[in-house]
Formats: sequence, C-alpha cells, structure tokens
Amino acid sequence: MTSAQSPRHKHIVLTSHPAQFGSQPHPVQWGNPNPQERGPIIATLGNLAHRNAIGTHSGGYAVYRALAIASGSLKRDHQADLTDTSPTVSIGPHPSWGDPTKIVALDPFGALDNHLFADLRAEGYDIRPSIAITKAHINIPELQDAVAQGRLKVDGKILKENGELVVTKAAIEPVWHLPGIAKRFGVEESDLRRTLFEQTGGMFPELVTRPDLEVFLPPIGGHTVYILGEIEAITDPDKPLAVRIHDECNGSDVFGSDICTCRPYLVHGIEVAIQTAQVGGAGVIIYARKEGRALGEVTKFLVYNARKRQEGGDRADTYFTRTECVAGVPDMRFQEIMPDVMHWLGITRIDQFVSMSNMKYDAVTKSGIEIVERITIPEELIPADAMVEINAKKAAGYYTEGEVPDETVLEKTIGRQYEDA
Amino acid sequence: MTSAQSPRHKHIVLTSHPAQFGSQPHPVQWGNPNPQERGPIIATLGNLAHRNAIGTHSGGYAVYRALAIASGSLKRDHQADLTDTSPTVSIGPHPSWGDPTKIVALDPFGALDNHLFADLRAEGYDIRPSIAITKAHINIPELQDAVAQGRLKVDGKILKENGELVVTKAAIEPVWHLPGIAKRFGVEESDLRRTLFEQTGGMFPELVTRPDLEVFLPPIGGHTVYILGEIEAITDPDKPLAVRIHDECNGSDVFGSDICTCRPYLVHGIEVAIQTAQVGGAGVIIYARKEGRALGEVTKFLVYNARKRQEGGDRADTYFTRTECVAGVPDMRFQEIMPDVMHWLGITRIDQFVSMSNMKYDAVTKSGIEIVERITIPEELIPADAMVEINAKKAAGYYTEGEVPDETVLEKTIGRQYEDA
Repeated sequence: MTSAQSPRHKHIVLTSHPAQFGSQPHPVQWGNPNPQERGPIIATLGNLAHRNAIGTHSGGYAVYRALAIASGSLKRDHQADLTDTSPTVSIGPHPSWGDPTKIVALDPFGALDNHLFADLRAEGYDIRPSIAITKAHINIPELQDAVAQGRLKVDGKILKENGELVVTKAAIEPVWHLPGIAKRFGVEESDLRRTLFEQTGGMFPELVTRPDLEVFLPPIGGHTVYILGEIEAITDPDKPLAVRIHDECNGSDVFGSDICTCRPYLVHGIEVAIQTAQVGGAGVIIYARKEGRALGEVTKFLVYNARKRQEGGDRADTYFTRTECVAGVPDMRFQEIMPDVMHWLGITRIDQFVSMSNMKYDAVTKSGIEIVERITIPEELIPADAMVEINAKKAAGYYTEGEVPDETVLEKTIGRQYEDA
Repeated sequence: MTSAQSPRHKHIVLTSHPAQFGSQPHPVQWGNPNPQERGPIIATLGNLAHRNAIGTHSGGYAVYRALAIASGSLKRDHQADLTDTSPTVSIGPHPSWGDPTKIVALDPFGALDNHLFADLRAEGYDIRPSIAITKAHINIPELQDAVAQGRLKVDGKILKENGELVVTKAAIEPVWHLPGIAKRFGVEESDLRRTLFEQTGGMFPELVTRPDLEVFLPPIGGHTVYILGEIEAITDPDKPLAVRIHDECNGSDVFGSDICTCRPYLVHGIEVAIQTAQVGGAGVIIYARKEGRALGEVTKFLVYNARKRQEGGDRADTYFTRTECVAGVPDMRFQEIMPDVMHWLGITRIDQFVSMSNMKYDAVTKSGIEIVERITIPEELIPADAMVEINAKKAAGYYTEGEVPDETVLEKTIGRQYEDA
C-alpha cells in the first residue's frame, strides 16, 4: 500500500487524555448486576471516542490484525457481523455477577447473550463479545483405553460408542477491572497501573494517562472452559460437580513430554468429569493459557537445561530453585485471579477438585468456593521422569494423601540425565 | 506494597524519543553474519538506556511479570542467572543468517550460543536469550497405535520400545526487524509502524517515536520446533528432510475436537518425521502459536456457531465466508513471515512437506526453499465432521492428489447440525 492509497495520515495521538474527549464514553459500573446499568465494554479501534476500555480484543492477536490492515487485506472500519454467533447455551446471570469483588478478570456479560446491547450496536457502537460459547464433539485417544480397561463406560449421550465426548465449550478473553485487580493483590491501583505500563516495555500509556478508564483488556491468553453434563447441574446444590483447572503446557498437553504430569493429569481430570456427569452431575475443565507457569516457553526450556545439567542432576530438592534463578520467581501464574471463571459459571461448591496445587486450592477457597474433596493424580499415570516434579511439589505443600517426601527422598529423586538420552 | 515501600515514584516517561538519550544504544546491523558486528538485541526493562529494541521478552507474559513486580514477589532489577541454560545442540550459523531478507521475524543469534555477548553481560547489560534449545522424550498415544498397526517401527534410538520418541526442541520468540517486515509485506515502514501502534489500541508508542529502533518484540506467541534425527541431516543435501509447519489449534491439538483435521494431521506429520529420521534423514515439526488462524479462540467459536446455524447447515461452500463475516478476513496467519524459522534451521530443500496449505507452500517456495513432494493427510485420518473443512480448502487451492471438489460437491458436504448432538 502506498501513502497515496492510505487515508490515515493525520496527526498521531500517542496517548489520549480525558480532556481530549468532548463527551464522556459510556460509563462502566463494574459489579452492577443489571447489564444495562453495568454498561457495555467498548474496546473498538474504529471510533476512538466510543472506547471505554484500555487495550483491545483478541489479546496479542491484535498484532496480526494490525498486519492485516497494514497490508491492505482488512478494512480499518470492519465491523463484525455477529449473525448466528450467539451462545449455544445460556450461562448465568449468577449472584456472583453482581459482586464487584468476585469477578475482576473477565466480563461476565461478555457473551452478549440474549441480544445484549443490540440497540447500541444498531446505533453504530462496535461492541464485541469477549466470551464465545459453542458445542463440540471431542475425541481423546486415552479415553478409548479407559473404556477398554473398564474405567469408563459408554452411555451413548455424554460418551459415545466411538469414543466421542459431547461437550459445551466457552472461550473467555481477559477483561480486567483495574481497581478490582489492585484490591485482589493488595496494592494501590496507581502502583498497579504504573507497573503494568513500565514493566511491559511501555504498553498502553493510557494505563497511566486515563485513570477514568477502569477496564483493561491485557494482551495475554484467556481461558477455555469444557463442560460435560447438563449446565444446570453446575449450580444445583443436589448434584455433584468435578472441576479441574489446568494451566497450559504445550510440550506435554500436545506432544506428551515426559518431564511433567500435565497431559496425564488433564486426561485424568476429563475422566473424573465424565464419571461425575454420568451420575447426573457436571464436570468442568478450565484450560488457562499460562504456558510455563506464565513465564513462556523460552524460559521453560532454559530451566529444563539448568535442571538437567546442574551438579547432582535433575533433583526434586532443587526443582523450584532452578526456575527462580532464571526467572526471579518459582512461579508467575497468580492463581488469585483464576477463580473468576468459576464465579462466572456460578460455582459455589466443588465436590471433586482435580488438582494437587495448594496455590489453586487456596485461591479457590479464599474466593468463597467450598472444596469437598481433592483428587490427586493416580501414581500409575506419572511418567518416571516427572517424579522430580511431583515430589518437589508435594514437599512444597501440594496436596497428597500419601507421605510428604522428606529431604532425603527429595535428594534421591533424580530424573533422567542428558547423557542417558 | 505501599507507596512508601516503592522506590519508583519518579516522573513517568510515556514514550522515549531519540533526543532523550545522551548516548546511543548498541547499534544493530540486522543481517550481518558476524554476531559481534550484528550486535545484541537488548530489550531489558532494567537500564532503559541500554534498550535497542521496542517491546520486551516473553511476549504477553510480560503482563504477568508486571503483576509479579507490582505485588512485590519479583525484584524490578532481577537479572536472569543463565548458568547451565545454553543450547543442548548448536544450530547454525547458516548462510541465511547473513541475509537480511531471509530472516526478519526472529533473532538467529537469539540462543546466545557459545557464550555469545558474555562480555557485555558481565559489564551489566541484561541480554536475554530469545531462543532456547533443549532435549526431551515425548510420548504420543496415537504413535503406539501406529507401531501396533505396523506403520511405524521401534528402532530403540529415535523411537523407543515404550513408545517414547527422542527429540531436540527449540522455543523461539518473535523478534521483528521492522524494515524487513515492511519489505516482506510491500508496505512503507512508517505505515507499518503507525498501523501496529494504532490498531493494537496504542501498544508501544516507541513504534512511532523511535524510528531509530528497528527491532520490535511483539507480544504474540512464537514457534516451537521439534527435531527428530540428527541435526546435521537437516542441512545435508544427501539426506532426506520432512517438515510439517503446524498452526496451533488448542481444541483439536489437545482436546481432539472433530470439526477439523489439526491433531490428526499433526500426528501424521510426526509419523512421517519419524520415518524420515529412521532412514538417516531428519524430521522437523514447527508449531506456530496462531490459535484460530491468528484470530484467537473467541472469534473461532463465534464462527463455529455461525457455520453450524446458517441456513442449509455447515457447508463447505460457505466455510470461508462465515469467518470473513465475523473477522473481516478468512485467515490472519500471514504465512509470509513463517519461513524464517526454516531459514534459521538452514533448510534449503524439503523432500516431504506435510501440509496441503497453498499459503504455506507459496510462502516457503517464494522464500527460496525447494519443496520436492507435498504430503496430504490420509483420508482415513479425517474426522467425518471435518470433511466440510477439507473440501472447502481443496476447492480454495489447497493441494490434493485427488479430485478438486466442484460446487455441487461443496454444497453437499454438510457437517453435523447442533440438533444432532
């Protein structure tokens, strides 16, 4: 595209200030249970005066959108045609949607269900969903083994003869209410805004110039929720609910790396979810895009090398230390904001919590959700090389019904060396 | 953390301008084959005067890093201890590393192999790797079936008795040379910078205020490369090379959704890679973080609903149209910058290209890599509901050895309806 073709050579506004706008954008009353009073979240890049949020939709994929516009393949003013895209099932509203402290990291009204804000859309406001809900059939090879071994039974409705599993699934983008996020972490909102701006290399000056904009769509991955069984069972106090919250690990989830228990534990969570749905309850798997403990895969691989090569080999007693040397912290997942997805689903009690993580357990129970039982990963599902991880985690406070490994055990839990490979 | 504890309440610099720096940052001579002359990429958030790039490391995970600092769990001045983290194998340098047009979307020297820039690090420059290379054992359930069915043979070295596969893997962060990216898309660099700034909601004002900084680390996912067989075979003209470039699809890759061919084709790619490595060649799987055609998962699920609900059902003849209605384009993956990973590996000829995508084929061959043979997905691996996708793609120009479906076939290729579920 040449400059002559481009209509956009106007003054570049580096960052907006409240005074630059003649009219105030649509107000947002976060936590108001009435969606009309709460107001829509508008993160359009079309009419900038309409924006009442910092950042934009689709997280980092906005960079690809910019490439599409720069290269001339996408029109700058494209408005999404949302015909037929509405949720396949309604989720909520739940009492938690009206509690500004329960949900601070997503927009509970983000699915735009029941033609929400259709009137404003008709007036030309580019209001996009931050949540999408659909149906799917999924097929996981390990489940067919579970059927063959008699651990799972085909019921023809949830789990079909050919191994297919019928699910409802939802994709959820992060939508942060900055005052709520600050409160969750016990920091000043102004400190949070300044650090978010400075420590990302200067993303979004509006974080510091627009204190009136309280909503931020950060360019990080969101959550995908897989629901087995009837949606209504999730919130029915008389029906059992199984939940696994799983943090992304591409190397194991997709490629089956044997250094961790991620995929085996995920598949076990799905098995428990099926069994719970089959007795009339519901099973929920929440997949969080937090690769490598939210440190990213480059850092993860650097840590693998440091673990395997250190003196004495890859040992459970130095499992967390090696991450801390490289990243400065042993973990960056901040489970404090994770329970919001559960509150969006209206969860108040989890009968079976398929996770051993104490950080996840603490975050969920602290947010007001009761956990009845914690389900550990069956020993036979732990790859040999992942014993380093599992013993280190048990010693660090992860839940186990068995013995907590002491120092001697940790020192002796040694993984495969590079020379063995 | 209270304000009193925080040492950082200085003037907020919203965006830097060249004049604000007394001394020039380390120059970058992109495409110079001598790494010392090329210079390091410095995207530190510690000493800002050292920065010679826009953005920072770990993509969007910088947001979590900011949370870690805001909440007081990470020190602002933490410097990575890179002891023992260096690559398990050396990759390159290759002639392509010295060609500023062949690689524009990653830093070929990003692994900091052979203690690269150790002298500058010792002087206090916070230079971090953007590439990490490690080893792994992986275990994919479908491969055990392939062994049982005689399609794959255990050799004890690449594919072990217990189904384990021995791989070298590399994680690669995007590092963009903006003049090179602009050239690749045939746009003016200033237009590209301005659009990247404006169409992301104002990320990184330095894109427009610092034309002297030519390197940008965008907050998008990168690539993971899995290598089977000897590294040297990748560039040995006498040895065969199989490659699959796979774009992320979490719903299929992890959860086995039957609406597309993603996981089956990925696993088939791994099978071909094993076979090629077993005859003395190499197999390369490149996994690109481009969920939902780089539109993100919310958009993807919206499109699924629109496809399934449209009049006449989910049909191959409207497969691309539905995405275009919602997203404005049928695809946002921009394969034009994908071949850079192959040039980083030194690939000049691919004997078996495990992909039917014409966009990928065109991008790879246009970049100067020869493709000898294209490998389609075997018919028996296509889930019934994914026939809509595969026929639509064949009709749109995707490679097939069979017949290209005509309009009648496309109209008649109808997927499962929501009512059937």
